[in-house]
Amino acid sequence: MSSKEAIRSKFVDEFPTLVEELKQVLVKYGMPEEAIQWYEKNLNYNTPGGKLNRGLSVVDTYAILKGYNSVDDLSKDEYRRVAVLGWCVELLQAYFLVADDMMDKSITRRGQPCWYRVEDVGEIAINDAFMLEAAIYELLKKYFRSESYYIDLIELFHDVTFQTEMGQLLDLITAPEESVDLSKFSLEKHSFIVIFKTAYYSFYLPVALAMYVAGNHDPKDLKQAQDVLIPLGEYFQIQDDYLDCFGTPEQIGKIGTDIQDNKCSWVVNKALQLATPEQRKLLDENYGRKNSEMEAKCKKLFNEMGIDKYYHEYEEKVAEDLRAKIAQVDESRGFKGEVLTAFLNKVYKRSK
Amino acid sequence: MSSKEAIRSKFVDEFPTLVEELKQVLVKYGMPEEAIQWYEKNLNYNTPGGKLNRGLSVVDTYAILKGYNSVDDLSKDEYRRVAVLGWCVELLQAYFLVADDMMDKSITRRGQPCWYRVEDVGEIAINDAFMLEAAIYELLKKYFRSESYYIDLIELFHDVTFQTEMGQLLDLITAPEESVDLSKFSLEKHSFIVIFKTAYYSFYLPVALAMYVAGNHDPKDLKQAQDVLIPLGEYFQIQDDYLDCFGTPEQIGKIGTDIQDNKCSWVVNKALQLATPEQRKLLDENYGRKNSEMEAKCKKLFNEMGIDKYYHEYEEKVAEDLRAKIAQVDESRGFKGEVLTAFLNKVYKRSK
Ligand SMILES: [Mg+2]
Ligand SMILES: [Mg+2]
Ligand SMILES: [Mg+2]
Ligand SMILES: [Mg+2]
Ligand SMILES: [Mg+2]
Ligand SMILES: [Mg+2]
Repeated sequence: MSSKEAIRSKFVDEFPTLVEELKQVLVKYGMPEEAIQWYEKNLNYNTPGGKLNRGLSVVDTYAILKGYNSVDDLSKDEYRRVAVLGWCVELLQAYFLVADDMMDKSITRRGQPCWYRVEDVGEIAINDAFMLEAAIYELLKKYFRSESYYIDLIELFHDVTFQTEMGQLLDLITAPEESVDLSKFSLEKHSFIVIFKTAYYSFYLPVALAMYVAGNHDPKDLKQAQDVLIPLGEYFQIQDDYLDCFGTPEQIGKIGTDIQDNKCSWVVNKALQLATPEQRKLLDENYGRKNSEMEAKCKKLFNEMGIDKYYHEYEEKVAEDLRAKIAQVDESRGFKGEVLTAFLNKVYKRSK
Repeated sequence: MSSKEAIRSKFVDEFPTLVEELKQVLVKYGMPEEAIQWYEKNLNYNTPGGKLNRGLSVVDTYAILKGYNSVDDLSKDEYRRVAVLGWCVELLQAYFLVADDMMDKSITRRGQPCWYRVEDVGEIAINDAFMLEAAIYELLKKYFRSESYYIDLIELFHDVTFQTEMGQLLDLITAPEESVDLSKFSLEKHSFIVIFKTAYYSFYLPVALAMYVAGNHDPKDLKQAQDVLIPLGEYFQIQDDYLDCFGTPEQIGKIGTDIQDNKCSWVVNKALQLATPEQRKLLDENYGRKNSEMEAKCKKLFNEMGIDKYYHEYEEKVAEDLRAKIAQVDESRGFKGEVLTAFLNKVYKRSK
C-alpha cells in the first residue's frame, strides 16, 4: 500500500498532461500565444495546491468499488480516467473558489494571493472562473464521449454545479459581510447552506463519479450513497465551523475568522437557538464586526453557553446514525458500504 | 404574416413560464423563499429587455427550415420548444453580459443600471451570472431530454460558451481599459476577438439549434451554415465598430465610446495598418484616453485617412462573397440557403 504522499503525487502527476490537452483546444482554434499562456497560468494557479481531498476521493472510491487493495493495482489507462474525473471535481472547486474569493473580498487562498489579486488579473478573474468550468466539459468530452454514461456525467456536473450555486446564493444573502442581521440566521438555514454549498460537490459528486465508471450506478445505489454522504458533508462543515471557533491555531493550522466575518456558522446558530434575551443582545452587538475585542466577547459567550458540548453531542449522534445507515446498505447490486465508511472515518473526530 | 412587434411579443410571452419552471427547481429543493425571489429577480432583470435578435433567430430559422410562411403556423408545442432554445441563447447572453459589465466597469445596460450596480447585489452578481448559465441546462433537460439530439444541444452550448470565453479573454488582455498599448492590436487579432466573442454565439448558435430541432443537422449542413455565419458575424461586428465611430447618434441611438474606451475596434486596427509614423504617434498619444479632445483628434485622423471608404469597400466585398457562398449551398439534404440570406439581409447596410 502506497503512502498517503505517494498517492497524492501520483494524482498530481496527471495534471500537467490535462493542462497540455486543454491548451491544445485553444491551439487548434488558432488562439494567439498570449491567450494560451494566460489560460495555462489560470489552470495552474487555481487548480492544484489545495488538499485535493475531493479529487483523490474519486480514485479511492473507484479502487474500493473494484476491490483493489491499492491505487497501484489500477492499469495506467484505468487510473488516468478516474484521475481525470478527480481533476474535474478540483476544476469545479477552482471555478467556485476564484469567484468566492472575489465575492468575499478575500486576500489569500492556499498561501498565495487570491487570483483576482494577482497583478494584471483583477476583474478578468470572472472570465477565468468561467474558463475553469469549461475545462470540465472539454475533459469529459475527450475521455468519456464514447461511454454510455457520458450524458449522466454531464448531468451530474450540471446538477451539482447548480446546487452549489444555490447554496452560495443563500449564503451570500443570509450573511453579507457588511451588514449584520442575525434574525436572518437559523440552524435550518445553516443546514441548507452547507448541504448545497459544500456537501453535494465535496462528498456526493466524487463518489457518484466513481460509481459511474465502476459500473455501480443503479439509481437505488446512487441514492444510498447520497443518503449518507449529504448528512456526512453537513457534519463535516459543522465540524469545520466548530474548529474555527474552538480549535487552537496549532490544531487547525490557521486562525479562525468566522466571528469577525459574520459567517452563518453552526456555532452562532446553535447559540442563537439557546440564547437568553441578554445573550442575544450581546451577539447582536458584537457578532460579525472587524474588531477583536467584540470577537472575544462572542467567543467567551459561546464558551459559557457550552456550545462545544452541544457540538460533541451532535458529533456522537450523527456518527452513530451514519454508522447505522451504512450497516444497512444493500450491497446486492455490487455497491459497497465500505466506500461510505472510508469517508466517515476521514471526518469523524478529525482535528484539522 | 405577423408584424415584427407581434413576433417579438409572442416570443416575450413565453418567458414568464420559463421563469416559473426555473423557480420550481428551487422550490423542489426546499430553498428558502428569499433565495427563490432573488433568482426570479435575477432572471427577469437580466434576460429580456434587449433586442432579442438572437433568441428570435432560432424561431425564424426553424420556420424557414420547415417551410412555414409565418411563426403563427407552428403548433403551440412546436413554437414553445423552439422558443425555449431561443431563450437559452438569451440566457447565455445574459450570463456573459452580467459578467462583461463587471469586467468593463460599465454603468448602464439596456437603459437600466448594470445588475452588479443594483442595490444589495454588488459582487453577488458573479454567482448570479453562474445561475443564469445553469438555467440553460435545466431547460434543455426539461424540454429535450428524450430527444436523440439532446447531447448535441448540450455539447453545442458547451462549445460555444467556451469559444465566447476565449474571445472575451483575448479581448480583455489585448485592450485593458486602463493601459493603452496599440502594439498589441492588429486586424488579425481583431478578427479572432470578434469571431470568438460574438460570431459563434450570436450567429452560428441560433441557427445550429434550429437545425437540430428541424432535423437538418447533418455535420455537412452544420458546416455549410457555420462557413457563412462566422464571417457574417465578423462583418456584423466590424459594422458595429464602424457605426460607433462614423454613425451619427441619431442613426445608432447612442453616442459611440469605443475610442475613449480603448476598444480593439476594426476602425483603429485599419488605421494602424495604414498609418504613417506621425499618424501612429498621434494614435499612441490620444487613443483610449477618457478625454474628448483626444477622442476628437483620433476621429479627425480616421476621417482624413478615409477609414470609412475602406469600410464600404470591405462591406461590398464581404456581402458579395457571402452571397456567392450562399448561392452554392448544397440543399440536397434539406438545408436551405434562404436561412442564411435572411441573416445577411438583416445585416447588410443596416444603420443601427
Ligand atoms: Mg470565501
Ligand atoms: Mg463565500
Ligand atoms: Mg470554515
Ligand atoms: Mg462591455
Ligand atoms: Mg468587455
Ligand atoms: Mg460596439
